[in-house]
Amino acid sequence: MTYRAPLNDMLLALNHGAGLKAALEAGHYGDFDPDIAAAVLEEAGKFATDVLAPLNRVGDQNGIKLKDGKVTTAPGWPDAYKRWTEAGWNAVSGSEDFGGQGLPAAINAACTEIWSASNVAFGLCPLLTASAIEALDAHGSDELKKIYLGKLISGEWTGTMQLTEPQAGSDVGALRTRAEPAGDGTYRLNGSKIFITYGEHDMTDNIVHFVLARLPDAPGGTKGISLFLVPKFLVNADGSLGARNDIYASGVEHKLGMHASPTCTMTMGDHGGAIGYLIGEENQGMRCMFTMMNQARLGVGLEGVGIADRAYQHALAYAQERRQGRAVGKQGEGSDPIIVHPDIKRMLLQMRALTAAARSICYATAVALDVSMRAKDAKVRAEAAARGALLTPIAKAFSTDIGSEVAYLGVQVHGGMGFIEETGAAQYYRDARITSIYEGTNGIQAIDLVTRKLGANGGAAVWALLSELSGIVKQVEASNDPAFGTTGAKLRDGLASLERTSKWLLERLASAPNEALAGATPYLRLFGSAVGGCMLAHEALAAKAEGGDAQRHVAVARFFAENVTVQAGALERTVMDSADSVVGADAVLLG
Amino acid sequence: MTYRAPLNDMLLALNHGAGLKAALEAGHYGDFDPDIAAAVLEEAGKFATDVLAPLNRVGDQNGIKLKDGKVTTAPGWPDAYKRWTEAGWNAVSGSEDFGGQGLPAAINAACTEIWSASNVAFGLCPLLTASAIEALDAHGSDELKKIYLGKLISGEWTGTMQLTEPQAGSDVGALRTRAEPAGDGTYRLNGSKIFITYGEHDMTDNIVHFVLARLPDAPGGTKGISLFLVPKFLVNADGSLGARNDIYASGVEHKLGMHASPTCTMTMGDHGGAIGYLIGEENQGMRCMFTMMNQARLGVGLEGVGIADRAYQHALAYAQERRQGRAVGKQGEGSDPIIVHPDIKRMLLQMRALTAAARSICYATAVALDVSMRAKDAKVRAEAAARGALLTPIAKAFSTDIGSEVAYLGVQVHGGMGFIEETGAAQYYRDARITSIYEGTNGIQAIDLVTRKLGANGGAAVWALLSELSGIVKQVEASNDPAFGTTGAKLRDGLASLERTSKWLLERLASAPNEALAGATPYLRLFGSAVGGCMLAHEALAAKAEGGDAQRHVAVARFFAENVTVQAGALERTVMDSADSVVGADAVLLG
Repeated sequence: MTYRAPLNDMLLALNHGAGLKAALEAGHYGDFDPDIAAAVLEEAGKFATDVLAPLNRVGDQNGIKLKDGKVTTAPGWPDAYKRWTEAGWNAVSGSEDFGGQGLPAAINAACTEIWSASNVAFGLCPLLTASAIEALDAHGSDELKKIYLGKLISGEWTGTMQLTEPQAGSDVGALRTRAEPAGDGTYRLNGSKIFITYGEHDMTDNIVHFVLARLPDAPGGTKGISLFLVPKFLVNADGSLGARNDIYASGVEHKLGMHASPTCTMTMGDHGGAIGYLIGEENQGMRCMFTMMNQARLGVGLEGVGIADRAYQHALAYAQERRQGRAVGKQGEGSDPIIVHPDIKRMLLQMRALTAAARSICYATAVALDVSMRAKDAKVRAEAAARGALLTPIAKAFSTDIGSEVAYLGVQVHGGMGFIEETGAAQYYRDARITSIYEGTNGIQAIDLVTRKLGANGGAAVWALLSELSGIVKQVEASNDPAFGTTGAKLRDGLASLERTSKWLLERLASAPNEALAGATPYLRLFGSAVGGCMLAHEALAAKAEGGDAQRHVAVARFFAENVTVQAGALERTVMDSADSVVGADAVLLG
Repeated sequence: MTYRAPLNDMLLALNHGAGLKAALEAGHYGDFDPDIAAAVLEEAGKFATDVLAPLNRVGDQNGIKLKDGKVTTAPGWPDAYKRWTEAGWNAVSGSEDFGGQGLPAAINAACTEIWSASNVAFGLCPLLTASAIEALDAHGSDELKKIYLGKLISGEWTGTMQLTEPQAGSDVGALRTRAEPAGDGTYRLNGSKIFITYGEHDMTDNIVHFVLARLPDAPGGTKGISLFLVPKFLVNADGSLGARNDIYASGVEHKLGMHASPTCTMTMGDHGGAIGYLIGEENQGMRCMFTMMNQARLGVGLEGVGIADRAYQHALAYAQERRQGRAVGKQGEGSDPIIVHPDIKRMLLQMRALTAAARSICYATAVALDVSMRAKDAKVRAEAAARGALLTPIAKAFSTDIGSEVAYLGVQVHGGMGFIEETGAAQYYRDARITSIYEGTNGIQAIDLVTRKLGANGGAAVWALLSELSGIVKQVEASNDPAFGTTGAKLRDGLASLERTSKWLLERLASAPNEALAGATPYLRLFGSAVGGCMLAHEALAAKAEGGDAQRHVAVARFFAENVTVQAGALERTVMDSADSVVGADAVLLG
């Protein structure tokens, strides 16, 4: 079962649900030619189908091997990576000043979905390189950019993000890796990091590590963290590779999924200290890290979308092929494909609608980030930045929750075969599980949503979004299309719940912060359910306006509204009613 | 992290939520001494903690090996099985006429939870033996019982259920294995079966297979299926083992989880045909199979409860030990255990409340089955049988859905460590995944609930249950205990949604069966959410009446009502609003 990028659905989501078309028409994308989007996605889809998808299972089965500090990836992977860079896929969104194609984040987001759907463990490597590029581009010195940025953008070298230590996971401020000035402008790093994705591999000649560490006498906590660029091999003045730096993979994890992606323990300082170069200013590492993180969070959300879509395609094909039982009322001999059974239809619709909503939310986040950087008007840029900041935790957490939910259903559609590894459905279920955890757990995302994003400017970004989405609801209701079923009412109720819950949380943020935190996760779900529903309705309306086969988009929007957005009222009640019981739960949990 | 049976919670659920105490007081259990329950569970808990729990991870890591038709289980497993039978655990609920202890199904249900929590892949073997015992006891000839029943009850031999073939999964009627009369009262079986749990192993001298097959000239479909007892080794007149029968494991599956439990492909007839003995009458195999199935369905539901409780215990211990960040508003140095964070508390409460509700539903099913067999009054027996039949699909599907949900949260509480296999949380997540599939997928359970159980006698069993549960709601409201929060209102709304949805589905069953089937899965969820909430409230009320530490039971009931039962209204709308869109989904799915 291969993967085919759902180009029509992706373009509809990009142009309408995510608002690319409106932003283009408003001139926020300058002279960017929208026809490029379709052409790029089509080529990306071909590369994914031809090169990446066939290696997905190979990677899962073979995993990676660590021997004498060297990691061997699965058969075919180094060659695929070479083809990937040669075809220019690593450079899609990189700066044109350093050899990148400078395409919008929105196009790159759609590509990221495609890489994740075809081979998520492969796509994870360039995802981290992209984060490294962001940090270097935003905060690095011209000299460092000159040496490293071009090679990272082309993909000739890959990047890593090194934050986590055993005592410092979600609590990054607790990290202990030390960096001491060497007197020549460079630093010597000592310490070790865990959970470092692609910390070591055999796909490129060099790896550029971005490491958070603490200077001597730095303040405690997050205020005393600095970011360093630590290359695996030092780079000579002529750009050639020099000495091996003192940073080594000393272990790899045995994981539930993502078997093809090496998750390394990295050790620095066994031979005098790893040479590192400061990125940004001393003790400003958290700021740099958030630059990396925001990029990576959207990317991980798109992993959720990609895995979900792959699981859906796999399950749909199986449901059309596997014959068991007969449709209700059917006479005669022979069995029907299981897709005739309403319960199977329901599962497939659930998979498709959840995936489509998560896709639209992720793409909308990317469009907002584009506009925040490309629009001419400063106010437009600022509002878009607030929109992007607001949507990022939802894009990450809602989409990855959905990745696991959809992969769960994908296994279920397969019945007993789903539990057999050979079938392939189980791999999506295993791989998806990490996406709700890394780059900030989904709980951390929910807390970020409530405290920083809703909390900013009295909720201004939320009110602006609600106002925009209520316009879509009016259009749905005005359409009087019976195919929408109760979509309009469900979306209206969903937005009303979102507004009331947002206000309630804003009040609690000041008066009873633990109660606001207790409601963070159901609030994020409510947010995604309401916003995703409106975006799908927007897409359905646009498809109707464009003519052609709009019926299926209307049906997906309706299903989402009647099966997912409909839960908004219950989520509102959960946030408000159960906050104090969650906060006071110690008697239950520790009793 | 070991496992400790939560005896107090289990006894509270058994006596109150499940109604054992009331049934005892009404005399339905004859002279059964209720003090035995606590003593048995305590001993079961000890055996689980000491013997079974330590082998859970050993089994997962070592898996099983098939060589030359022989299966080797993980190190320590054959010895543990020996200790299991010697301690009498296999015989808990078996008939006293054949050496069993004749304890009620309710006690056995609680034990099954304990075995599943400590080591689900181990517990699966006796679970299938129990199903075989049920079928043989209910339908077997005296001669077969004399030879096999005692050994199956003691556990000296294990049993298997052999239904599935590649083309016959949920659609059992499509099976092709042939059985031909040998002229001496026995039959010769030819064919092959897949997904046969413990179809071959090294823990006992003999295995007694219960095989569905088709006689020559049998009618097509489910009406032409017969059940046969097919021993691995034939049994001589003196009870000693004779010749090897022609039934062999020809393959084992590589699965997502349950690695320690061999899932075999079985081949019969390579050497002239396996000798089989008819159970029940010719072409009555489906009836016999349902006897096995109902027993097994409740058992699988209890696997869901057990895995959930184990995942909860594991996560709770981690949350008390792992330190990251600090509680809101806390000053000074040092980090707090993550259980101080409201979002972590929410996840743990969700795990605990879901587990508790599923437990109560499963135990209530067992109590109903007991009363249906033990009560003196025929009307009481009939009503209890209807109750047991109604609750069985909910016990199976709701509890196993919850098993996966709770295991998902268990991984999440562990953060990045949850994805590392060494931690152990991932095993529960993998193991739980099959429970929603085997013994009838959860979709099949939902269809059974709507068509056979709700559909029986105009929904009489549902109305009787609703009437009983509304009495609990009144008590909650009358208690005026502010610790219940909005529990009373949530349960009242939940039961009202359940009643309206049941009526709507009953109508559609006749007029538009596909629309009823389309709503089956959300209806089952609604059923479990409303009924489970009432049972937990019942337990909280009982704990208050008994005095002592009732606060935590009130808090669990409240959390469930405000976080799970609260979704009933949305589920009701989903069933009613989206039925026709699900039925007409082909345009979306195949477009």
